[in-house]
Amino acid sequence: MVQLSFGARVRKSPFFDSTIKHGVTHFSVYNRMYMATSYGDPKAEYQRLTEGVSLWDVSCERQVEISGPDAAALTQYLCPRDLSTCKIGQGYYVPMCDHDGRIINDPVLLKLAADRFWLSLADSDILLWARAVCAERGFDATVCEPDVSPLAVQGPKAEDVVADVCGDWVRDLKYFWFRETEIDGIPVVVARSGWSKQGGFELYLTDGSRGNELWEIMWKAGEPYGIGPGTPNSTERVESALLSFGTDNDGDANPLELGLGRFVDLDSEADFIGKTALQKIAANGGPARLMTGLLLDGDEPMKSVEHKCPVTQNGRDVGFISTSTYSPRLERNIGIALLETDVVKGADSVVVHTPERDHRGEITSLPF
Amino acid sequence: MVQLSFGARVRKSPFFDSTIKHGVTHFSVYNRMYMATSYGDPKAEYQRLTEGVSLWDVSCERQVEISGPDAAALTQYLCPRDLSTCKIGQGYYVPMCDHDGRIINDPVLLKLAADRFWLSLADSDILLWARAVCAERGFDATVCEPDVSPLAVQGPKAEDVVADVCGDWVRDLKYFWFRETEIDGIPVVVARSGWSKQGGFELYLTDGSRGNELWEIMWKAGEPYGIGPGTPNSTERVESALLSFGTDNDGDANPLELGLGRFVDLDSEADFIGKTALQKIAANGGPARLMTGLLLDGDEPMKSVEHKCPVTQNGRDVGFISTSTYSPRLERNIGIALLETDVVKGADSVVVHTPERDHRGEITSLPF
Repeated sequence: MVQLSFGARVRKSPFFDSTIKHGVTHFSVYNRMYMATSYGDPKAEYQRLTEGVSLWDVSCERQVEISGPDAAALTQYLCPRDLSTCKIGQGYYVPMCDHDGRIINDPVLLKLAADRFWLSLADSDILLWARAVCAERGFDATVCEPDVSPLAVQGPKAEDVVADVCGDWVRDLKYFWFRETEIDGIPVVVARSGWSKQGGFELYLTDGSRGNELWEIMWKAGEPYGIGPGTPNSTERVESALLSFGTDNDGDANPLELGLGRFVDLDSEADFIGKTALQKIAANGGPARLMTGLLLDGDEPMKSVEHKCPVTQNGRDVGFISTSTYSPRLERNIGIALLETDVVKGADSVVVHTPERDHRGEITSLPF
Repeated sequence: MVQLSFGARVRKSPFFDSTIKHGVTHFSVYNRMYMATSYGDPKAEYQRLTEGVSLWDVSCERQVEISGPDAAALTQYLCPRDLSTCKIGQGYYVPMCDHDGRIINDPVLLKLAADRFWLSLADSDILLWARAVCAERGFDATVCEPDVSPLAVQGPKAEDVVADVCGDWVRDLKYFWFRETEIDGIPVVVARSGWSKQGGFELYLTDGSRGNELWEIMWKAGEPYGIGPGTPNSTERVESALLSFGTDNDGDANPLELGLGRFVDLDSEADFIGKTALQKIAANGGPARLMTGLLLDGDEPMKSVEHKCPVTQNGRDVGFISTSTYSPRLERNIGIALLETDVVKGADSVVVHTPERDHRGEITSLPF
C-alpha cells in the first residue's frame, strides 16, 4: 500500500476538507491538484452514480479563461470545432490539437459572452500553450486561470437535488448549456454536464474561499435522495465509452483515432491549429489506429490495469489497452484499447497481456 | 492516511519496480509520472544523502529534445540565458519564462550537439509550449520527448560509486558537464548534477526497457559505500535553498523574484521569450517580491506545511510560505517564503500562519 505525500507543489481543492471529512481514501493528481478517486467502497459509489445521486470534487478540471477583443478569434484558432454556431450560455466538447494534429486536451468550452470563454480542462497545461499561441500570433486577448472550481452532482436523481437548491429552471437546461447564478450568495455557474452518462450538473464555483459551504449545501439538499460522496467513476466511464484523456491516448494519438471525428470540422471555413495535419490524415486513408472496446475473458471480476498493457494479434504487437474493469451492467470484464485500424476492422479477437495473465479480448464497437 | 490510486493516465518510471522492491512508502505525481518521495525513514534518508550515498528515481524529470537545423535558434529563443557560451557536453541551469516574464519551468539544458539539446524539466508541460512556439514562429526543428529517464546518485560518496562503475574519468567531470557512455551495454548520459548540494551524478538512461538493470548495477556498486534508496529531499533542499519549481513560486512569479537574476541575461544580444517583460520589471525598481529564508520559532521539530500558508506583518498579508522543515544542520525550524520586497529588505520578522498554530519567522538571507 503506497501513500500519497502532500506538499505545496500540488494544490488542494476548495472542497478538499469536505472530501477528507466524508472519508476519501484515495487521491490521484490531476492538473497539479489532488483529485479524490475513491471513498473506499467502489460498489456503493457505482450504485449511487447509476441509481441515485453522487457528489464529486472535480475542481481539478481547471479553467483557462480567454477574454478581450480577439477572444473569439483566438478561441476558434485553438479549437478544431466550428464555434460559429456556439451560443452564449452554451458549451461545446472540443478535442484540442497541436499543430501536428495530436490531441492535447479535450475540454468543454463554455461561451460566457461574445468575448469571454472558458476551457474546462482535462489533464494538461493548456494555459501555457494558449498563452504562447496568443503572444506569438499577436492576438489582443487575455489568457488566465480564473478562480473557478467545478463540483459535480451526478446520477439520475441529480436533477431533483439541483432543482431543490436552484429552482425548477435547471430542469429546462439543455445538455452542456449553463447559467450564472448564486446559491445562498455563493457565486456559481450551473451547467448540465459531467463526466458520466447518468445525467447531472456541474456547479462551477467562482469563489474558492466558499468551497466547503457549497459542498455542505448540496450535501444537505441531497440527503432526502440518499446522496453520497463519489468521484469520476472508471467503471461507468468505460461502460459509457467516455474518453479519459491521458489514459486512452498516448502522446501521438489524434482525435480521428479516438473516434472524435464528429467534433473536428475539417471542412469549416475556420482556420485552427492542426487542421492541415488532420486533413492530410483524413485524405490518406484515415487514422492508422482506432479506439475500440474489448470484451475480456475471465469468470472473476478483473481489476483495472495500472498502466497501458500491450495487445497482440497472432503474436504481433498491435496496440495497447488503457483500462479494464468488471462491468456490473454487462456482467463481464470489459476494456478500452487503441489498436491498429486493420485489426479493429478485420479481427474478431486479440490477446491482452496484463501483469497477472493473458486475456482473450473480443473486439466490439463503442459504446458497449 | 490517504492512498494513491494507480491508473494508466499517470506513467510508471523505468525504475518503478526497483523502488517498490526497495520499500518505497510514498509517491507524488510529477510531469504525469509517479515520483517516489519517501522510503519511510526520513532521518536515515537525510543522513545517507549528507554523509553517504543515495539512489534516486528521478525519471519524472522528463526531457524535451530540440533537434534540427534551427534547434540552436529555437532553444535560445525559449531560454532567457545567453547560450552562445554553452559548449557541447555542458549543461546550463535555465529558468524559462513565458512572454510576460513569468517562470514556467527551471530545467537544466544539456547541449548534446550543435543542433541537439535536452531540457531536463521540472513539473510543467514544456513539450506543448515549445512545440507551439516552434510551429507558430516557423522554426525548422523537431521537438519531442525522447526515451530518457534520469537516475540520480547523490551524496559525498556518489563520486566513488559512479567512478567504480564508469571509470575514473567521471572524477574530472565539471559541474553540469556530461558524457555519453554505456554501463554494461546500457546506454546512458552521465552528468555531474542533481537536486542537492551534496554532490553527485545523474545517469540519463536512454533505453527505458533497462531501468531495473541499471538500478541493480548502481545498487551493487554502492553496497560497499552503504548506498540506500532516497528521493529528492525536502529538508536538504531547503537548507541548500534549491528552488522547488511549483512549490516556491505561484503562477505569477518571475525569476527576479526567485533570486535567479544571474541566469537571465537581459543585456545579451539574444532575443528570448519574456525579455521585454523582464527588462521592464528590472527598469521599474526591480521585483515586487523576493524569495527569502525564514528561521521559525518552536522547540519541537516542525512538520512541513502541506500547502502554501499566509504570512503577515503587523496584521497585513505580505506573501506565503511554501515549505517548512526541521533542519538537522541548523538544529532549528526553517522555511522558504515569497514575500513583498519591502518586507524582506526592511523587516526583522513576520508571522507564519500554519493550520496548527502561528509561528514567528525571522527573515534571513538564502542559502541558510
